[in-house]
Amino acid sequence: MQTGSHDIRAVILDMLRAADGEWISGEELSRRLGISRAAISKHMRVLRDQGHGMEAVTRKGYRLVGEPDSLSPDIVRAGLGTGVFGRREFLHLASTPSTNMEAMSLALHGAPEGSMVVADAQTQGRGRKGRSWQSPPGCGVYVSLVLRPRLEPEAAPVVTLLTNVVIAETIAALTGLTPVCKWPNDVLINGRKVSGNLTEVFLVADSVGHIVTGAGINVHPLPADAGAGLRTPPISLAEAVDGPAPSRLAVLRAFLEQYERWYAVLQEQGIRPVIIRWKQLTDVVGRHLHVETKNGLVEGTVTDVTDDGMLVLRQEDGQEVRLFSGDIVDG
Amino acid sequence: MQTGSHDIRAVILDMLRAADGEWISGEELSRRLGISRAAISKHMRVLRDQGHGMEAVTRKGYRLVGEPDSLSPDIVRAGLGTGVFGRREFLHLASTPSTNMEAMSLALHGAPEGSMVVADAQTQGRGRKGRSWQSPPGCGVYVSLVLRPRLEPEAAPVVTLLTNVVIAETIAALTGLTPVCKWPNDVLINGRKVSGNLTEVFLVADSVGHIVTGAGINVHPLPADAGAGLRTPPISLAEAVDGPAPSRLAVLRAFLEQYERWYAVLQEQGIRPVIIRWKQLTDVVGRHLHVETKNGLVEGTVTDVTDDGMLVLRQEDGQEVRLFSGDIVDG
Repeated sequence: MQTGSHDIRAVILDMLRAADGEWISGEELSRRLGISRAAISKHMRVLRDQGHGMEAVTRKGYRLVGEPDSLSPDIVRAGLGTGVFGRREFLHLASTPSTNMEAMSLALHGAPEGSMVVADAQTQGRGRKGRSWQSPPGCGVYVSLVLRPRLEPEAAPVVTLLTNVVIAETIAALTGLTPVCKWPNDVLINGRKVSGNLTEVFLVADSVGHIVTGAGINVHPLPADAGAGLRTPPISLAEAVDGPAPSRLAVLRAFLEQYERWYAVLQEQGIRPVIIRWKQLTDVVGRHLHVETKNGLVEGTVTDVTDDGMLVLRQEDGQEVRLFSGDIVDG
Repeated sequence: MQTGSHDIRAVILDMLRAADGEWISGEELSRRLGISRAAISKHMRVLRDQGHGMEAVTRKGYRLVGEPDSLSPDIVRAGLGTGVFGRREFLHLASTPSTNMEAMSLALHGAPEGSMVVADAQTQGRGRKGRSWQSPPGCGVYVSLVLRPRLEPEAAPVVTLLTNVVIAETIAALTGLTPVCKWPNDVLINGRKVSGNLTEVFLVADSVGHIVTGAGINVHPLPADAGAGLRTPPISLAEAVDGPAPSRLAVLRAFLEQYERWYAVLQEQGIRPVIIRWKQLTDVVGRHLHVETKNGLVEGTVTDVTDDGMLVLRQEDGQEVRLFSGDIVDG
């Protein structure tokens, strides 16, 4: 098997990261990778050009002192722990109306599962019911994935919960925070919205053709006026963590890794483990809520979430209603 | 209100068609339309350039002796009795992989309801389960429409039946034949397939975003090898009718008119009248059938079709099963 230049640079980066800021000599790299020291030195120049903070000192070798916060394919893939997600078609855009729209377009033209679109900014970032998602340049991770799951059409809503779980796990893993899933498609920290997602399903006759799931994760603070008029005010990871915020790059890599992991759970073990995990991550079960639905306001205590993602509310008169969609008014 | 040149030519064509091959003088046209005889003569030249068989004889005037079988927007719209369908975005292609794919792409970029894609040929015409639809150049009408219905996601399968109804009504109106709807998405004449359709639904979170429904209608005979390997052999309108076959143009216009009519029924009166009409057009109810489903072969007598398009089969042991999809093996 021949190893491409990209792969070798990914291995070099992994070795430097593992060294945790300590020096690794060119000789050692050359021996472990089985390539010449001249080749090592050429790869290091490319990595530096890509924005990796690479120090090179004679007799000491190389060490990593910082990583660029760029979401371009070369950089994202270097050190990405996935086999499929982020490793198929990969579109990195400075700005786009909507990463979901771009990904749906790719999928329509046959892009395989694991293909993705990521943008530094969205001009028409979309949420449920035509709502917008604030996506100013460089503030967050705006990413959409192409999925081609084995899933019956009626089970497709689970993908919204899957994406919620992935986002919460991503944030927890990177920051140690405890994000909360808010039904149906938000993730909160301290009652403020750190992330939203939107899943779009393409049905061909009686089968799921493909699905695009998109996430917006606020990493750096939004402009001061961004939360105006929102029921749930926004928050960014930078505002929520003690100490330095994770980079967008780190968030995107972790998101892809968590997605690959949880998607395998869905495809191999079915819907239940995803629902179970989502229930652990939400605080909705047991709460008394008002929910705005298409058919008016519904009030009751949440007793469960069904396998197909419906909220079960027990009303005052003891009757149970199942809600496929709606907005929780109580925050 | 100003009348555009297109509209005036459409009115001229309608008047000439109403005259049924008789002469109409330039003077009369000029008087009835309130434009000069020079303008009339200019419009006639354009109509002739578009392929309309226009005769002009001094002292007699004009008469229509034939229409072109072209599906370009100008020609289709002249004499088209619709207000919306075929009157929004209109893409006429000599050849395309799939009109559904093109229409989905238009819809994704915001094309309004009633937009359409029609092609003289498809190279990868699609059916259910990734099956292909034979679409050789000029043989049939290959058309896809963009719909943006008020419809809950679980009701979306009705659009497949709606398109079946429209195709059967189109053929019946043009030819006097009695086509039969075959569940779920074919239309037969004499037990042979004259038309198939494929509906693709785009769900945004918990709502129907848009729907593309595509139809292939065989007008002229397919090449001799086209039916090889098909369970239900194909037939064209030309083979089925006594006397001259309708043109593709006439089929497309009638299809658009029937679609507009039946779509209004769906949006104004709901699903029931569509299902009722479909049941009148099918011979499936009461028949003893074998159906291949995802979960194996099911045998039984069809007792009903539900409002959401499911086939109800009573098995020998008296148990009823509801089939959302499958293939009828008995033809």
